[in-house]
Amino acid sequence: MKSLKGNAIVGQSGGPTVVINESLVGVIREARRHSEITGIFGALHGIEGILKQEIFDLGAESAENLKLVARTPSAALGSVRKKPSEEDCEAIFRVLEAHSIHYFFYIGGNDSAETASILNGLSEKHGYELRVCHIPKTIDNDLLVTDHCPGFGSAARFVALALQGDNLDNRALRGVKIDVIMGRSAGFLTAAAGLGRREKDDGPHHIYVPEVPFQVERFCADVEACMKKWNRCVVAVSEGIQDENKKPILTTSGEKDSHGNTQLSGTGALGDHLANVVKEKLGVKRVRSDTFGYLQRSFPTIVSEVDAREAREVGAFGVRELTTGGARSGSVSIRRRTHTAGEKGERPSNGWYTAEYFLTDLASVARNTRSLDAKFLAPGGSDTTAAFERYALPLVGELPVMGRLSGRRIRPRKI
Amino acid sequence: MKSLKGNAIVGQSGGPTVVINESLVGVIREARRHSEITGIFGALHGIEGILKQEIFDLGAESAENLKLVARTPSAALGSVRKKPSEEDCEAIFRVLEAHSIHYFFYIGGNDSAETASILNGLSEKHGYELRVCHIPKTIDNDLLVTDHCPGFGSAARFVALALQGDNLDNRALRGVKIDVIMGRSAGFLTAAAGLGRREKDDGPHHIYVPEVPFQVERFCADVEACMKKWNRCVVAVSEGIQDENKKPILTTSGEKDSHGNTQLSGTGALGDHLANVVKEKLGVKRVRSDTFGYLQRSFPTIVSEVDAREAREVGAFGVRELTTGGARSGSVSIRRRTHTAGEKGERPSNGWYTAEYFLTDLASVARNTRSLDAKFLAPGGSDTTAAFERYALPLVGELPVMGRLSGRRIRPRKI
Repeated sequence: MKSLKGNAIVGQSGGPTVVINESLVGVIREARRHSEITGIFGALHGIEGILKQEIFDLGAESAENLKLVARTPSAALGSVRKKPSEEDCEAIFRVLEAHSIHYFFYIGGNDSAETASILNGLSEKHGYELRVCHIPKTIDNDLLVTDHCPGFGSAARFVALALQGDNLDNRALRGVKIDVIMGRSAGFLTAAAGLGRREKDDGPHHIYVPEVPFQVERFCADVEACMKKWNRCVVAVSEGIQDENKKPILTTSGEKDSHGNTQLSGTGALGDHLANVVKEKLGVKRVRSDTFGYLQRSFPTIVSEVDAREAREVGAFGVRELTTGGARSGSVSIRRRTHTAGEKGERPSNGWYTAEYFLTDLASVARNTRSLDAKFLAPGGSDTTAAFERYALPLVGELPVMGRLSGRRIRPRKI
Repeated sequence: MKSLKGNAIVGQSGGPTVVINESLVGVIREARRHSEITGIFGALHGIEGILKQEIFDLGAESAENLKLVARTPSAALGSVRKKPSEEDCEAIFRVLEAHSIHYFFYIGGNDSAETASILNGLSEKHGYELRVCHIPKTIDNDLLVTDHCPGFGSAARFVALALQGDNLDNRALRGVKIDVIMGRSAGFLTAAAGLGRREKDDGPHHIYVPEVPFQVERFCADVEACMKKWNRCVVAVSEGIQDENKKPILTTSGEKDSHGNTQLSGTGALGDHLANVVKEKLGVKRVRSDTFGYLQRSFPTIVSEVDAREAREVGAFGVRELTTGGARSGSVSIRRRTHTAGEKGERPSNGWYTAEYFLTDLASVARNTRSLDAKFLAPGGSDTTAAFERYALPLVGELPVMGRLSGRRIRPRKI
């Protein structure tokens, strides 16, 4: 394929993550190294910024500032949830043409891949020469094809750490604690709640994901049995849990974005609902719920190093594929290359793990989502397996060991 | 005063923090150094553990394990919210006597100080020789006498970091964001939400604390003006906000503990309520709320080093005062000793700050609480002052600088 000279534009789309700016900086740095790319621009709030010509020159950003931006949470270019119509796409091509832009990098999830795919398809139809690359990002880890998604490891690290602390809080002041975790239809992030468990009484004692139909009676029985066993109970619940008819357990605002996704986050309603159920049906006095909300995807300093590195590398890889690699379009995916089993009893760690990148068709990633693999779910459906730990721990990084007093009890005296 | 030989017991009480185990370990380590203290015991779940004789020997804990426990969040001995009756106290004295315990260390907030004070008063009345020390702990920072409380710095660090990230999340996907922060009657922790702001558009754009009567109309006007100015708005709201008649804006369960405190945390109801108000009254489409909940007091690894050190030191200081210091009872307090003003424009930092400890009467700390100082509240009542930053930043530690693209806009072309 002949070499294509032109400017490149990069945008960020969908829910931000703590490492999505690593991908942005990965794109910017690599773009500067390729003579095919004459200038590297950024679109404010994704395709909305292209339509409004809110376009910024990223070529002049200092190396020092890029380093700072890379480790800053959330989308430095602003984000958007917008599915372009055919009219939007035509307007986008006119803007791109006016700015001699022939490379389009879009960092986001499956909806962003859909946007990239639509633009790619219509560019061929309209005869506008455009190379399109989707750079994966999502804390939900629900993209097809790829082994996992940049953004997941750090969000999972936040969730695992949160549960390590919350488990101890519940151990100190006993009762039932319900933690609601992000994830519209995939349970990966909720499953990560259990990654920090080490002692046999460590919570979360049950994990409820959207992949397993949620039954209130079953949930109450689980909590009751756990209270009997440990005199306390911590459960992790995905915000997207649904009943046997795929109806969400609690829909609140009915608000949807232009990709058709229902709003689930940004409200404590599900947690409060489940807490009331436990209070009323089981008569437990101390019941609390927390909904982790946006902290999961935006908390500074809680970053998995593997995740940050991969987020950077998928950006750079996408640029190489569209330039020296000669690809017309695609979505960057991750393949797990080596994964040593480790010594028996040894906890999975970063050292076990290496990954490589490849390009897959935009259409194979667009729209549809992946669910938690069956092998990651324990029989019974309210816990995860050792296979999930082996899968997720290398992405999350080492978790701290929680201390515990050795507990030599003093023999009670007769009073 | 003659030297008193006997065993010592330590308990933890009230809401845990990420550094309350530093205080526990501070007590244990120091107790071992004093010959007056023949053995150091721990009570499971505070005075409940004494009543049930669930008492553990802490003398044999290894130095290595104590180090691990010290940096582990939540109360390693378990906690309790229990105000002892006179009958409880008599039973407690019988247990203490049976175990030759003459030193009592209680780590907690104002309610725990009250428990310590009650025990202290009744021990004199009953002629049981007991030395009693309250070791301060609270994320609310609402103890009287002391400059600040161990536990606050780390919780404030969590809140400040959370808002740094959440502000950027809101900047990427615009709308109104409401963050509900712990604090029953004191606004210190909520005030900490603004500590990470550096750019003029950084949120939280408004901060609502329990000390200032909350008016819904005023709140809506604030949010509306902010939306007009920045096209987005982040507000930090204390869970304890109340109207002009001191009535909480939202009471949910009506649940109270034996000290008479209403349950506010562990529910997303207040945030959801305010989000609905904004949606309905202002017609803003994207409104989200997060209630930070128990993560604020239990998240591992988010620790202020100053806070951890002081938590350790107040424990050790209490032991010294009751032994070599010869004090009969008291609560450990912190006095801010030096506080350099720094260069003009320089941000407050740890280096500015040193503290010293002293013992104050148990009665002066028991029960009543401190409010946010008037000088920490900006005129208008919905923001903090530079004086608050100078007060709080040394306790919270350095906060990361958030990166931002320099933003050289490309001149729009005629399409």
